[in-house]
Amino acid sequence: MLTSKSTIMQKYIAELIGTFSLVLFGCGAAAVSGISTAGPAGVGLLGIAIAFGFSVVAMAYAIGGISGCHINPAITIAMLVAGKIKAGDAVGYIVAQFIGAVLGAGVLYLILSGKSGFEMGEWALGANGWGEGYLGNFNTTAAFIAEAVLTFLFLFVIFAVTSKWGNSTMAGLAIGVTLMLIHLVAIPITGTSVNPARSFGPAIFAGGKALQQLWLFIVAPIAGGIVAAIVWKGLFNEAKS
Amino acid sequence: MLTSKSTIMQKYIAELIGTFSLVLFGCGAAAVSGISTAGPAGVGLLGIAIAFGFSVVAMAYAIGGISGCHINPAITIAMLVAGKIKAGDAVGYIVAQFIGAVLGAGVLYLILSGKSGFEMGEWALGANGWGEGYLGNFNTTAAFIAEAVLTFLFLFVIFAVTSKWGNSTMAGLAIGVTLMLIHLVAIPITGTSVNPARSFGPAIFAGGKALQQLWLFIVAPIAGGIVAAIVWKGLFNEAKS
Amino acid sequence: MLTSKSTIMQKYIAELIGTFSLVLFGCGAAAVSGISTAGPAGVGLLGIAIAFGFSVVAMAYAIGGISGCHINPAITIAMLVAGKIKAGDAVGYIVAQFIGAVLGAGVLYLILSGKSGFEMGEWALGANGWGEGYLGNFNTTAAFIAEAVLTFLFLFVIFAVTSKWGNSTMAGLAIGVTLMLIHLVAIPITGTSVNPARSFGPAIFAGGKALQQLWLFIVAPIAGGIVAAIVWKGLFNEAKS
Amino acid sequence: MLTSKSTIMQKYIAELIGTFSLVLFGCGAAAVSGISTAGPAGVGLLGIAIAFGFSVVAMAYAIGGISGCHINPAITIAMLVAGKIKAGDAVGYIVAQFIGAVLGAGVLYLILSGKSGFEMGEWALGANGWGEGYLGNFNTTAAFIAEAVLTFLFLFVIFAVTSKWGNSTMAGLAIGVTLMLIHLVAIPITGTSVNPARSFGPAIFAGGKALQQLWLFIVAPIAGGIVAAIVWKGLFNEAKS
Repeated sequence: MLTSKSTIMQKYIAELIGTFSLVLFGCGAAAVSGISTAGPAGVGLLGIAIAFGFSVVAMAYAIGGISGCHINPAITIAMLVAGKIKAGDAVGYIVAQFIGAVLGAGVLYLILSGKSGFEMGEWALGANGWGEGYLGNFNTTAAFIAEAVLTFLFLFVIFAVTSKWGNSTMAGLAIGVTLMLIHLVAIPITGTSVNPARSFGPAIFAGGKALQQLWLFIVAPIAGGIVAAIVWKGLFNEAKS
Repeated sequence: MLTSKSTIMQKYIAELIGTFSLVLFGCGAAAVSGISTAGPAGVGLLGIAIAFGFSVVAMAYAIGGISGCHINPAITIAMLVAGKIKAGDAVGYIVAQFIGAVLGAGVLYLILSGKSGFEMGEWALGANGWGEGYLGNFNTTAAFIAEAVLTFLFLFVIFAVTSKWGNSTMAGLAIGVTLMLIHLVAIPITGTSVNPARSFGPAIFAGGKALQQLWLFIVAPIAGGIVAAIVWKGLFNEAKS
Repeated sequence: MLTSKSTIMQKYIAELIGTFSLVLFGCGAAAVSGISTAGPAGVGLLGIAIAFGFSVVAMAYAIGGISGCHINPAITIAMLVAGKIKAGDAVGYIVAQFIGAVLGAGVLYLILSGKSGFEMGEWALGANGWGEGYLGNFNTTAAFIAEAVLTFLFLFVIFAVTSKWGNSTMAGLAIGVTLMLIHLVAIPITGTSVNPARSFGPAIFAGGKALQQLWLFIVAPIAGGIVAAIVWKGLFNEAKS
Repeated sequence: MLTSKSTIMQKYIAELIGTFSLVLFGCGAAAVSGISTAGPAGVGLLGIAIAFGFSVVAMAYAIGGISGCHINPAITIAMLVAGKIKAGDAVGYIVAQFIGAVLGAGVLYLILSGKSGFEMGEWALGANGWGEGYLGNFNTTAAFIAEAVLTFLFLFVIFAVTSKWGNSTMAGLAIGVTLMLIHLVAIPITGTSVNPARSFGPAIFAGGKALQQLWLFIVAPIAGGIVAAIVWKGLFNEAKS
């Protein structure tokens, strides 16, 4: 995922399109195809986990060479802490990610508006949340631990596979697969965020509880990511050869 | 996916067999195995999405080196707009794709005719469609937006992974995975086409509504693909090194 | 999948262990985990298809360099027709494949015997079959067409990905994925064989109808494989560089 | 999976984090997301198998270059028998694996404690077991055969893909996929261990039957792994070039 010979504007556009895709594919799989209606069974938690994880696989190989494929402010901030991106560029990355996520949720909303009998629910468009009434009924502590620990593992894998010990051909697959694993565990807890932009997009449209609970999906992933950056630098300090 | 040392006739045959496989595997998974009967649960929307997506993975590595593995007229036309295929060859590619798709649907029809109690339904053989009575009951606007936007993303990934920023070993996987993601979102909306030939094959046999609604699966994917070609050329203009 | 520096006996042992694994993993997923009992939902047709397909992925990378990883008499015979294996070696390969398949079915039988209330059904241990009472109730013509055409496509992919146009790193993945696709379509029709040894193993233990119907799973896959060898040689004749 | 330029302490930390992830992702998918509650269908046996298998895929590419990614005492002991790790290092590896597994189960317990109405069942946290009342109701003989034979195949694949005949880029994928296949067969039998540390973590918290049955998940995988090491050395003796 080394970035070479792309302009800063190309990087921002890549991050925007990448985050747009993550939200449209991931939240789209949840909101459009998650539950069975007529015909074949819905994609279920497994299908939603695959949708989020393999959106990152596809985007890692599409835009990894352009922008590094962060498509997640928690990754960009962890990269900043680890000294792998400049502060000015990081701001641009994060702005692009939020714009992409909102556009992705917007297109999803547009499509769902064309569905017979569609109504916006409390956590519509695949919005993240927790507590009584949200999937598995987990409390705030469980939600925070899950989001922080899982983002820590996500960043640990990202640092490791892009280090001198990693295999550059398979890095994108390993990173996307890790996001799939995170979803396989955490959808019943929080819907799985580990990504403030991914949570922001649907919450803007869903409003209400999704917006009130947005803070956790900003704080916990960024905290987990920063700890991973510090741990990686402290224990596996290395220079990319 | 660079094409080398294959004759134009070998390219056409590869495109024919590739599109044949896409329709037989993808529409076959939907029409034969989609819904549970006796025994284990049917493959559901997730299995159908995997079938379409990984048909492209398999074919990308089988015929990518021969013809580039378009197996989709929307891709061929986008490649024409991007200046990556000659107009004369593009016509041959598209003819081969339509023949392959019709043969794939024909073999599928032959097999289904041997099923006890089989009757051709309104959207049989995995035909695409939309509106009341079609899976998730989405309207024409939603169908058009979904098909056009998702084909745009499909072509964006194709241009990116085969550019100087991509990894040629993983390109086929990333492209096929993207088609899987597209299906994970859009099956309830349109059955997911993003490919005029894939829609044409089953519609010829199913007739009726599947044939009346065929226009959208020609217009929307081609429109999305052309926009992607123009956007890619404009923003990420590059010479393959 | 080039074979180098392995003795002929190592090749035979590799083929035996590979076919043993294919039957134990594939038929085991069907017979042990296919249908839901208590707890989580069974793996269903999708899980069974993944089990067969990814057994080939795993074995292709494990023994591909030793024996070429045929683990299927239809592949060995097609390779013989294509001039890629010597007749004497082919006989040894096929004997090893049949022994491996019987041992795989035997271990599976041993394990299932330890299940409370287990009884051998008509098509136990994941045995192949067709007709009234077999999953989707398809007739003999449908079964024969499906097995022959799908083996043709399987061998087409094998010849293509191992040709000068293929990518040797991804060949094993593409071949295994193709077997998964074949299962996604054909399980309701025949349980999916495309491999005489895979059908032979369970049929020996299940007896009755599974044994009476075994002929089709020998004749159709071999016919499809031979046609693929002839078509490939005729149309894509090439010297591996 | 060659290990280079990492300190012994980095190897231990990598093994700890790797085994932590395996337990948190694998057992977490089972205990949190296995069964449907409100909303989309649970991940089922297929999702649990994918979670365990792809945890190894992700970790193989993350820490394979640091420690070799054993994250399983049965692998470490088999590597010792095969002469691929020093006895002193092996002890450290195994200690780290057990600590990681206990921490993984601990975090999972912490999260589940925050679930409304959560109660520790007899085989909570994805603990392994067998017999009447455990998923498919298989007896001790079946459980032992399954665990021993499947660990044998697991190690056979590991030795083969990391030998001179293997492809180093794809080794991690093939190994993880094999663990997925093992789970696709054996979850109804034992929940699938093939890894003493993975069984130890949840058993410490679940106590009772899970703890009483722990012996089998230590003895059978280690026996299967040792036999694989001996067979591989005897039949496929080779020097890595």
